[in-house]
Amino acid sequence: MNEPREKYFSNLSDRERAIFEGGISMGALFHQFTGTPVSLETADGLESAISESIKLQPAIMDVEVHIDRDMIRKTAGEFGYVSLTGDMLSVRLTVEHGSERVTVRMEYLEELRYPLMYIED
Amino acid sequence: MNEPREKYFSNLSDRERAIFEGGISMGALFHQFTGTPVSLETADGLESAISESIKLQPAIMDVEVHIDRDMIRKTAGEFGYVSLTGDMLSVRLTVEHGSERVTVRMEYLEELRYPLMYIED
Amino acid sequence: MNEPREKYFSNLSDRERAIFEGGISMGALFHQFTGTPVSLETADGLESAISESIKLQPAIMDVEVHIDRDMIRKTAGEFGYVSLTGDMLSVRLTVEHGSERVTVRMEYLEELRYPLMYIED
Amino acid sequence: MNEPREKYFSNLSDRERAIFEGGISMGALFHQFTGTPVSLETADGLESAISESIKLQPAIMDVEVHIDRDMIRKTAGEFGYVSLTGDMLSVRLTVEHGSERVTVRMEYLEELRYPLMYIED
Repeated sequence: MNEPREKYFSNLSDRERAIFEGGISMGALFHQFTGTPVSLETADGLESAISESIKLQPAIMDVEVHIDRDMIRKTAGEFGYVSLTGDMLSVRLTVEHGSERVTVRMEYLEELRYPLMYIED
Repeated sequence: MNEPREKYFSNLSDRERAIFEGGISMGALFHQFTGTPVSLETADGLESAISESIKLQPAIMDVEVHIDRDMIRKTAGEFGYVSLTGDMLSVRLTVEHGSERVTVRMEYLEELRYPLMYIED
Repeated sequence: MNEPREKYFSNLSDRERAIFEGGISMGALFHQFTGTPVSLETADGLESAISESIKLQPAIMDVEVHIDRDMIRKTAGEFGYVSLTGDMLSVRLTVEHGSERVTVRMEYLEELRYPLMYIED
Repeated sequence: MNEPREKYFSNLSDRERAIFEGGISMGALFHQFTGTPVSLETADGLESAISESIKLQPAIMDVEVHIDRDMIRKTAGEFGYVSLTGDMLSVRLTVEHGSERVTVRMEYLEELRYPLMYIED
């Protein structure tokens, strides 16, 4: 770990670094891809493209993305597709730095009426 | 063409309608997907996902997207990927309405220093 | 109108050009700004910033943006803000090219369950 | 802190929580606003709108955003504006949770050719 960027992170533990990178990537995912047109036919391909692009980011080992097909079905308007929103998304990021690994989740929680991002144990 | 939305377009010729829908979809494509992390390995999949999502929009018959691999190579930073920008994108949309078909292009033009969107004959 | 870009538009009438530029800017507005966090307190400022940025685009003379405060109130979750969605937006673009002027509208239409973009006379 | 969401964060220290929320908001800022048309005239207003919207997010106390005017000047094409990119942005977020406060930075680093996000002491 003697890459030039590492000097910027000497004030973080491995666990803090994994939490930070996981937060960045979850915020990125939400704000990059919400708004994308999606239908029942294209949901598989969009899930893959989201996963592949977010896996490029630092410390991200794995990305599972699920787009809720029932919500597409229920909210699709006359044209058969919807704009992707946060409440259709369920995401799990596996993030590793040094010897530490954390799992970052996003899911829409009815009780909060909010797509919550949190660390899953 | 007796769908409810068509009454909103009675003031447009078929050609004007195709030009309008093509403009919307090109603006959508640019502003939805620029910023997406992309590498040499993920460019194919991202091109497909962009194409599939934009094909969902009204009147869009075909979408060809090309991401410039040389620009990825030249601008990739320490982490091996870049954020997609307009000057890496070359796009051709085939748009049809009624009996009219137009081709909408976007390409970065060095002479303008600008990713120009225009109608190709 | 002897700027270098104009040669790319010799195949469009003034009205077609205005329709094309209006479509681009409406697609851009929707896909750039949906997802933005917004509350009752920040809606004014966000409307202004959207308007100012879209007015920079070619041929756009005026941009009126309205974000539905009732929808913010009704959908705000525990944290007091929402992610901007297309059904909260009502937009009117005034677009001019040469001697032609068109008004491009976007509004959410309950009958279509869709934020429709169309040309208003 | 007996709000319903807090049970999701019982596995994080106050400092880890601040780091997580700061990461989310920095990723959000980058991916929401890159691509926005901006000129020398609209840069002030865009900085304010970005700041106001990101301050709505959990735990974010203050947001300073600076858009590099020299880069706008140098890269503006024929139309006098550019699409906002990460290398034009310098951002400082002040994040607080419980008794802990962290400062999250984003700046473009020439040595990395990358807009790095890190925690500043």
